[in-house]
Amino acid sequence: MNIDDQNGTTVLHRTAEYKPGRSLSTWLIGRPLATADAQHETIGKLVGLAVFSSDALSSVAYATQEILYVLAAAGMGAFGVAVPLAFVIVGLLVILTVSYVQIIYTYPNGGGAYIVARDNFGDRPALVAAAALLTDYILTVSVSISSGVAQVVSAFPILYDYRVEIAVGMVVLIMIVNLRGVRESGMAFAIPSYFFLIMMFTMVGAGMFRYLFGSLGQVIAPPQDVMSQYNILQPLTLLLILRAFSSGTTALTGVEAISNGITAFKEPRSRNAALTLIWMSLILGSLLLGVTFLAHQVGALPSEGETVISQLGRTVFGGRGLTYIAVIAATSIILILAANTAYAGFPRLSALVAFDSFLPRQMTYRGSRLVFSRGIMALGFIASVLIVIFQASVNRLIPLYAIGVFLSFTLAQAGMARRWWKSGHLKAGDTVKEKGSILRFDQHWLIKMIVNGLGALITSVVTIIFAVSKFKDGAWIVVLLIPSLVFMFLSIYRHYRRLAKDLSLDHYGASPRIFRHRVIIPIGGVHRGTLVALRYARTLSDDITAVHVSIDPEDTARLYKKWDMWGDGIRLVILESPYRLFIEPLLQYIEEIDRKRQPNEVITIVVPQFVSRHWMSTFLHARTADTLRKVLLNREEIVITEVPYQVY
Amino acid sequence: MNIDDQNGTTVLHRTAEYKPGRSLSTWLIGRPLATADAQHETIGKLVGLAVFSSDALSSVAYATQEILYVLAAAGMGAFGVAVPLAFVIVGLLVILTVSYVQIIYTYPNGGGAYIVARDNFGDRPALVAAAALLTDYILTVSVSISSGVAQVVSAFPILYDYRVEIAVGMVVLIMIVNLRGVRESGMAFAIPSYFFLIMMFTMVGAGMFRYLFGSLGQVIAPPQDVMSQYNILQPLTLLLILRAFSSGTTALTGVEAISNGITAFKEPRSRNAALTLIWMSLILGSLLLGVTFLAHQVGALPSEGETVISQLGRTVFGGRGLTYIAVIAATSIILILAANTAYAGFPRLSALVAFDSFLPRQMTYRGSRLVFSRGIMALGFIASVLIVIFQASVNRLIPLYAIGVFLSFTLAQAGMARRWWKSGHLKAGDTVKEKGSILRFDQHWLIKMIVNGLGALITSVVTIIFAVSKFKDGAWIVVLLIPSLVFMFLSIYRHYRRLAKDLSLDHYGASPRIFRHRVIIPIGGVHRGTLVALRYARTLSDDITAVHVSIDPEDTARLYKKWDMWGDGIRLVILESPYRLFIEPLLQYIEEIDRKRQPNEVITIVVPQFVSRHWMSTFLHARTADTLRKVLLNREEIVITEVPYQVY
Repeated sequence: MNIDDQNGTTVLHRTAEYKPGRSLSTWLIGRPLATADAQHETIGKLVGLAVFSSDALSSVAYATQEILYVLAAAGMGAFGVAVPLAFVIVGLLVILTVSYVQIIYTYPNGGGAYIVARDNFGDRPALVAAAALLTDYILTVSVSISSGVAQVVSAFPILYDYRVEIAVGMVVLIMIVNLRGVRESGMAFAIPSYFFLIMMFTMVGAGMFRYLFGSLGQVIAPPQDVMSQYNILQPLTLLLILRAFSSGTTALTGVEAISNGITAFKEPRSRNAALTLIWMSLILGSLLLGVTFLAHQVGALPSEGETVISQLGRTVFGGRGLTYIAVIAATSIILILAANTAYAGFPRLSALVAFDSFLPRQMTYRGSRLVFSRGIMALGFIASVLIVIFQASVNRLIPLYAIGVFLSFTLAQAGMARRWWKSGHLKAGDTVKEKGSILRFDQHWLIKMIVNGLGALITSVVTIIFAVSKFKDGAWIVVLLIPSLVFMFLSIYRHYRRLAKDLSLDHYGASPRIFRHRVIIPIGGVHRGTLVALRYARTLSDDITAVHVSIDPEDTARLYKKWDMWGDGIRLVILESPYRLFIEPLLQYIEEIDRKRQPNEVITIVVPQFVSRHWMSTFLHARTADTLRKVLLNREEIVITEVPYQVY
Repeated sequence: MNIDDQNGTTVLHRTAEYKPGRSLSTWLIGRPLATADAQHETIGKLVGLAVFSSDALSSVAYATQEILYVLAAAGMGAFGVAVPLAFVIVGLLVILTVSYVQIIYTYPNGGGAYIVARDNFGDRPALVAAAALLTDYILTVSVSISSGVAQVVSAFPILYDYRVEIAVGMVVLIMIVNLRGVRESGMAFAIPSYFFLIMMFTMVGAGMFRYLFGSLGQVIAPPQDVMSQYNILQPLTLLLILRAFSSGTTALTGVEAISNGITAFKEPRSRNAALTLIWMSLILGSLLLGVTFLAHQVGALPSEGETVISQLGRTVFGGRGLTYIAVIAATSIILILAANTAYAGFPRLSALVAFDSFLPRQMTYRGSRLVFSRGIMALGFIASVLIVIFQASVNRLIPLYAIGVFLSFTLAQAGMARRWWKSGHLKAGDTVKEKGSILRFDQHWLIKMIVNGLGALITSVVTIIFAVSKFKDGAWIVVLLIPSLVFMFLSIYRHYRRLAKDLSLDHYGASPRIFRHRVIIPIGGVHRGTLVALRYARTLSDDITAVHVSIDPEDTARLYKKWDMWGDGIRLVILESPYRLFIEPLLQYIEEIDRKRQPNEVITIVVPQFVSRHWMSTFLHARTADTLRKVLLNREEIVITEVPYQVY
C-alpha cells in the first residue's frame, strides 16, 4: 500500500500476523491464502482443460444416443441420418468456438455472454444472458450428479433408497474440493478427466482400426426395448430431423464455460484460455464424430437398459473385458465431474454480476482460499435443493436443461455480430473505448458478422425447439424463472443505487455540532449491571433519567427502595403498565421525549446488558434489551449504547 | 401504586393509555385485559366443573372397557369381577378426593402434589412430582386429541391420511381458546361437557330403570373379536385381577387437576374448588359404577371394533336411534375436551415451578388475557411434537400415559401422611409456620395419616404396575424422562442462583468514577453514516480513532483521500488484512488497546450502523456491525454504541 502520511493523522498499523487455527474449516479446505498469493492460484492449459471441459466432454457419453432416440420413431432406416447430423453439429461447434475465441480475446476479464450482451445491447439483455447461464450451471450440477448416481444405483440397486442422500453428498464433496481453490480442484479432478479422454480415444481408435480392416462386426444382441415401442413408423420428416439435431446439440453445452472463467488461467490468460478452448473443441468434435460414426456402423440401438457407449465398447473390444469396464467406469466418473465445470463457471459469473450491483455484494468477496466461496456455496445449496425436490430423477430434471445455455449462445453470437457491424462502420485505425473493451476497425467485419449472425440464428432456433418441445415436461419452469431472475437482479440494483444515493457525501453540508445530550437508562431492577451502566452514563451527560416499567407493584416498591440507596440521586421515572407490556410504554415515553427534542440535542439510550456465556441464558432471560435495541435502531437521532456486564 | 415522592427524584409517569390495535392476535384471542381486571377472570363452580373435570369424566368412556380387556384372558366367567373392582376403584377415588380436599384447603394457592411434596419432603421429591405431572399433562393432550381424532377417522376413513394434521389443528384450536382466558375457555367448553353429563346420566338412569323393571335384556350380536383370541383360558389369578384393577384406575387421572388450578376459582376459592372436586368425584364415581354394573348385566364384551359404551347404549335405548347417536357424539367430544383440563393445569403448575426458579422466569408472566400464555403455548407445542412423532397413534402413546399422574398421587398422599404425623406431635393450640402453609395440631391425625398412607401405598403399587407392565411398550421413555426433567429443573435453578449472586449489591462498594474515555470507530467507507457517527463520537471524548480494515488496496486509497476531506483531522488507523478477514484484525487491534488501558479508563466502540427498513437489506449487506457487536459484547469494560443512520 502506498499511503502518504504527510498530515500525520494516518497510521498504517500491522497487527500481529494472523495465525489460522486448526479449525474444522482449515482441515476441510486448507489454510487461508494471502491476497498477494493470487497469481499462484491460477491454472495452466493442462489443468484448465480438465476443469473447464469435463462438462462439454461428458456429453460424448450421451449425445449420439439422444440423436438415435429421436430418429428411432422413423425406424432403423433413419439412423443413417445420425452421421450427417453429427457433422452439422460439429459445424455449429466450429462457429461457436471461433466466436468464443474472439470473445476471450476481446473480454479478457471473463463473463462470456453476459459481458458481450452488456457491452453491445445493454443491461437487460445482459441480465437475461446471466440468468440463463446461472440457471444452467445449477442444472448442470443437479443433472450430472443425478445421472452419475443413477449409474451407480443401477450397478448397486440396494443404494436406490439413498440416491438423494448420495447425490447431495457428492454435491457437497465437489463443493468442498472447489472451496480449496481452483488449482487444487483442478489437480484433484485432472486424473479422472484424462483417464476418460484416454479411454474414449482408445475405443474410437480401436474401432476405426477394426472398421478399416473390416473386422468391426455388429453389436451382439442389441437391446430392443426402445425399437419395439414403434409398431407404426413415422415418416422421416424435416421436423423429426430438426428435433434429432437439437437433441444432439446438448453436446455443445459447456463450450461457453471457459469464456466465463478466463481469470482462472495463468498469464497470458487470453491466449491460454483460447488455446484450451480450441483443444477442447477439437477433442469434442472428433470424439462426437467418431462415436456417432462407429455406433452407426456396429448397429447400436438406443435403449433404456444399455447405453450406446456400452454397446459400442463391447463390440469394439469383443466382450465385457477389462478395457470395456474401464470405459464404463470412466464414463460414470466424467458424468459426475461435469458438475465441476459449473463450480468453476458459476462463482466467477455471479461475482461479475454482483460487481455490477445486480447480485449481493458479498458474492464478490474472495474466501480464505481466494475463490468466490459464497458463489460456490450458493451453487451447492441450490443444486442440492433441486436434487431433493426432483428426488435425483434425471428424467424430471433434463427437460429444464440446456435451454439456458443456448439462450446465452444466441445472445453472445448476436452481440458479437452487432459488434462487427459497428466495427465495420469505423474508419481504419480509429478506436472507440467501450465499457468493457476497445473497438477497432476490422476489415473482415462482414464475413465475421455473417458467421456470428448465422450462429445466432441456429442457436436461437435450437433454444426455441427446446423450450417448445419440452415445455410441458418442465421447461416452463425455466421460461418463468429467467424473467423472474432478471426482475430480481434489477431490484437488487435499484436497492444498491438508492442506498448509495442516501449515503453519498455529494451536496452534504457540514452538520452542526451536538450541544445537548439526554441520557435515558431503562432499568428492570437495581443490580450490579444497572450500576455499571449508570457509572458509564455519568461520563456522557448530567441529564440522566432512569426509567422503570412497572408491571408488578410489589416489585416496583422494592426497586424504589433500592434506588433510594444506590440511585445516586438520579431521576427515576416509573411507567405504569396496566397490560403488563414492557416495550410499548417505554417506546411511548421515549417518543414523548423525542417530540420535545431541541435541535442539536441527541438522545442516548444506555441499556444495561448482562452477558452470560452460559448456553442456558438464551432461553432463561427475556432479552428485553435486545428487543428494545431492534425497535429503537429504526429511529433517527436516537443512539443505543449497550453497557455489558459479565455474569456467570 | 403508593410511591412516596419526598426526595423529588421519583416521577410516576403515565404514558397515554395503550390502545390495542386490531392486530391478528387481538382478533384471535381478544383485546388485552388490564392487570386490575384479574378478579373478573376467575370462574365459578359450574364453569369450573366443566374446565377441570372433562379429563376425569372422559374416563367413564373407556375405564370399564379397559377392565374387561384384561379380564377377557380368563374368559367371560371372569367378567363378574369387574363390578367389585369398580367398587374398589371408587373407594380409592374417595381416599384421593378426601385428601385433595384437604390439600386444597391447606395450600390455597394451588400446586397440588408439587407444593405438598416441597413443603413436606423438600425440593427434589417436589420436582419429581412436578416432572411427573407436567409430563402427564402433555400426554393428556396428545392422547385425548389422538383418540378423539381416531373416532372421527373411523367414521370418515377418507380423513385417515390427514389424521396428524387434524390432531395438530385441534391442539392449536384448544390452545387459542385457552389463550383467550380461563373464563372464555370455560364458557366455550361448558356446553359440550354438560351435554356429555346429561347423556351419560340419561343412559345410566334409563338402564337402571329397565334393569329394575326387568326389561333390560342382553346386547344383540356382541362383537366377538377380542374373546375369540383366547382359545386357551388363563385361570383368574390375583395378578390378573391386580392388572385389571390398575387398568381401571386410569379413570382416576384428572382428579388432581383442581388442586393445581385453585387460583382460577372465584373467592372463596378453596371452598369453591373443594366443592367442585367433591361434585366431580360424585359424578365420576356414580357413572363409573353405573356403567360397569350395566355393562356386566347386558353382557357387553371388550372389542376393537365397538366400544362398551356403544354396546350399552344400543341395548338400553333399543337400537341405534337418535338418543344412541347423541351418546356416541357426546363421548367423542368429551375425549377431545379432556385436553382442555391439561391446558388449565399445566400453565398454572409450570408458573409455580418457574416462580421457584426451576423453569424459565418467563413462564410466570401473564399474557395479554391474564393467563400464563407461555405455558399454554409450550404445552401446545410439545403435545403437537409428540403427536407428529407418534403419528397420532393412541396405541403407541397410551403406554406412556398415567404413570406420571399416579407417581404424583403417591407423592401427594405420602406428603400429607407425613404432615399428619408432624401435626400429631404438636401440642394442642400450637401452630408452626411452614414455607407454604401453617401447621396446626389435629386431633384426628392418626386416622388421617392412616388413610393417606393407605392411599400412598395403593397408588404407588399402581404406579409400579404401570411402569413394569408397559415398560417395553414405551413406559421406559417416561421412566427416563422424569429424572432428566428433574436434572433440568435443578440446572436452571443453579443458573438463576449464580446469576443473582453475580448481580447482587451485597458487598458491592461504590465504584470509582471514569476519567478517561477512548473512542474507536470502525469504518468501512466514508459516507453520511460515518460522518453522523463521527459527530456523535465528538460529544463523548477528544480521544477518537477511526479504524479501517484494508482488504482491497484500491478501496483503501480511495477511502484515504475521502478521509483527508471529511475526516475532520481525526486519527485514522489502517489495518492490513492479508487474508481478507474483517473481524479478526479489528479484534486484535482492540485487544492491543485494551491491554494498555489504564484504570478508570473506558473504551467505547462507536459503530456507524446504517439501517434500512427494506426487506432486501438483510441479505444484501454484510452486517459486519452486528457481528462485531456480538463478539465485543462479551468483553468487560468495552461499551458498544450504535449510531443509526436511516437509509431507504
